[in-house]
Amino acid sequence: MQMRFFTLTDYPVGLPDRTLFTLETQTLPELDEGEVRIRNRWLSVDPYMRGRMSGQRTYVAPFELGKPMEGGAVGEVIASKDAHFKEGDLVSHMGGWRDIAQLPASGVQKLPNIDVPEQAFLGVLGMPGMTAWAGLNLIAECQSSDKVLVSAASGAVGSLVVQLAKAKGCHVVGIAGAEHKLEWLASRGVEAVSYRNKNAEELERAIAQASPEGVDVYFENVGGICLEAALGQLNEHARIAVCGMIGSYNDTAPAPGPSNLSQLVVRKARMQGFIVADHWHRYADFLDEVGPQVAAGQIDYQETVEETLERTPDAFLALFEGANTGKMIVKL
Amino acid sequence: MQMRFFTLTDYPVGLPDRTLFTLETQTLPELDEGEVRIRNRWLSVDPYMRGRMSGQRTYVAPFELGKPMEGGAVGEVIASKDAHFKEGDLVSHMGGWRDIAQLPASGVQKLPNIDVPEQAFLGVLGMPGMTAWAGLNLIAECQSSDKVLVSAASGAVGSLVVQLAKAKGCHVVGIAGAEHKLEWLASRGVEAVSYRNKNAEELERAIAQASPEGVDVYFENVGGICLEAALGQLNEHARIAVCGMIGSYNDTAPAPGPSNLSQLVVRKARMQGFIVADHWHRYADFLDEVGPQVAAGQIDYQETVEETLERTPDAFLALFEGANTGKMIVKL
Repeated sequence: MQMRFFTLTDYPVGLPDRTLFTLETQTLPELDEGEVRIRNRWLSVDPYMRGRMSGQRTYVAPFELGKPMEGGAVGEVIASKDAHFKEGDLVSHMGGWRDIAQLPASGVQKLPNIDVPEQAFLGVLGMPGMTAWAGLNLIAECQSSDKVLVSAASGAVGSLVVQLAKAKGCHVVGIAGAEHKLEWLASRGVEAVSYRNKNAEELERAIAQASPEGVDVYFENVGGICLEAALGQLNEHARIAVCGMIGSYNDTAPAPGPSNLSQLVVRKARMQGFIVADHWHRYADFLDEVGPQVAAGQIDYQETVEETLERTPDAFLALFEGANTGKMIVKL
Repeated sequence: MQMRFFTLTDYPVGLPDRTLFTLETQTLPELDEGEVRIRNRWLSVDPYMRGRMSGQRTYVAPFELGKPMEGGAVGEVIASKDAHFKEGDLVSHMGGWRDIAQLPASGVQKLPNIDVPEQAFLGVLGMPGMTAWAGLNLIAECQSSDKVLVSAASGAVGSLVVQLAKAKGCHVVGIAGAEHKLEWLASRGVEAVSYRNKNAEELERAIAQASPEGVDVYFENVGGICLEAALGQLNEHARIAVCGMIGSYNDTAPAPGPSNLSQLVVRKARMQGFIVADHWHRYADFLDEVGPQVAAGQIDYQETVEETLERTPDAFLALFEGANTGKMIVKL
């Protein structure tokens, strides 16, 4: 059986060029004992993957040049030599960026029995959803009385953060750019603030207007002027959960950080980076809490869907243009 | 009775000019019920006081122009209309920047019964010492296996941080400038790193050499290139206790922050500002632990002593030139 998959031909500097992604074909070997073969139906593309294209180890090893790339995927088992899986099982795994995945069963999970579309396990009930939940609850220790600020608030992670915070009863401000994103935020009861055509000072004023009682929790996805503006509006004992700083992922030279970091002292505030993988042992708690809300339609999760394996790199690159609302996925 | 005291005549921009501090004289009113009168013997000058000269409320109200300035002081009760104090009692209080203080007894503490020179309660066993202990233990949650980095490592706070960390058994690196400060650090078993004539990258290399196993705890007193260099060497789950950023206290324009803040995500690290006042309920725990070490001569606390009330502003301004080793105090 043939597998079609993407490889990276070189580590990019700055925004990756489309030509660095090469679609290759390979004949799969016979299935070994303990392996499963999966026909992927949905592939995930995520900002964190840019970090794996750097050639430097960060919190996850870089992609190996010329080898199949990896990423979250949902598919159907089409052959199994492991007792836990049988043909027809729907599963999630990290063998993405390809059409057919052949993997050790230890790296494959059956989809939980929750009545949602299967691709939700790449988004609202998968890694991005778990990231939102862990950042808000385990890192920022968000309480119902908190004033919450979220950057990239309509993205895969941010769009769940704002809704989970609203469900707690928090006052929530979301930063986004495009008009339809601001409208979506407003439709969820979120105070929407645009970063467009603003410097840090102007953005800070807009945040102050949208959240007159300051910011207790800031969920950071962007960095740059968003962070500087947020620091200026922190309340005492504020908590910043740093999920990512997509604003700088394609920088070719170091960009200066916020000039007002000393606000952390003045406001006795905490800023904490986190990686969802460290909290995966809480996935069942997350599913228990958020799964029923999603199944009941109380969470409005957005998806931006590209189609065909060939378009996977394009879907990935579109993340850096803010082209997605909610989770960006590829349908095979 | 006359009180001589300093007032601030205007809020400075940048490094305060000596002429902004005016020595005034006032006749004290009769002692009220519940008040005590204290002849100050020692005055404290501290970097945080610069924040009170800004005209803006931060975590403490600004100094009022034309009113007696305030600060830590140690003195002897010379008159009391409060049952808890009698003439001859040695006390600490916040009525500094003056020779005679007349205060409500509620703001006055008797010196603890520990066999150390009285001025130690302005330094190693006072606010700076408590700051070091709280930052290291309560904020950074320092453990014996941690690799510890301290900026302004020979200062009033830093010099105690490095010794408390050494006493725990930690590997400790201290950043300082002047040769005699580096020598003092080395004499305490601390790996001394100079920031002089280095950019952030060069300082980071020097830290990497001095601490080949990275940095688990960074005690931040300076900001600027020290922070940027430290961020580059963090281990996973590192904790940064942000005590202050003296490097920027006199900036007239915002200076950019570190370009590598996203290391907080990569290293899943925490950066937390704190104010010692929030932790004062733990002062007895601090005294229990550190008091005996100081009394036994195990802690080498340095003092830089100016003399006479008139020189108080000069002592304060010298802090920003790095002129002090250890605690800067004024002897009256």
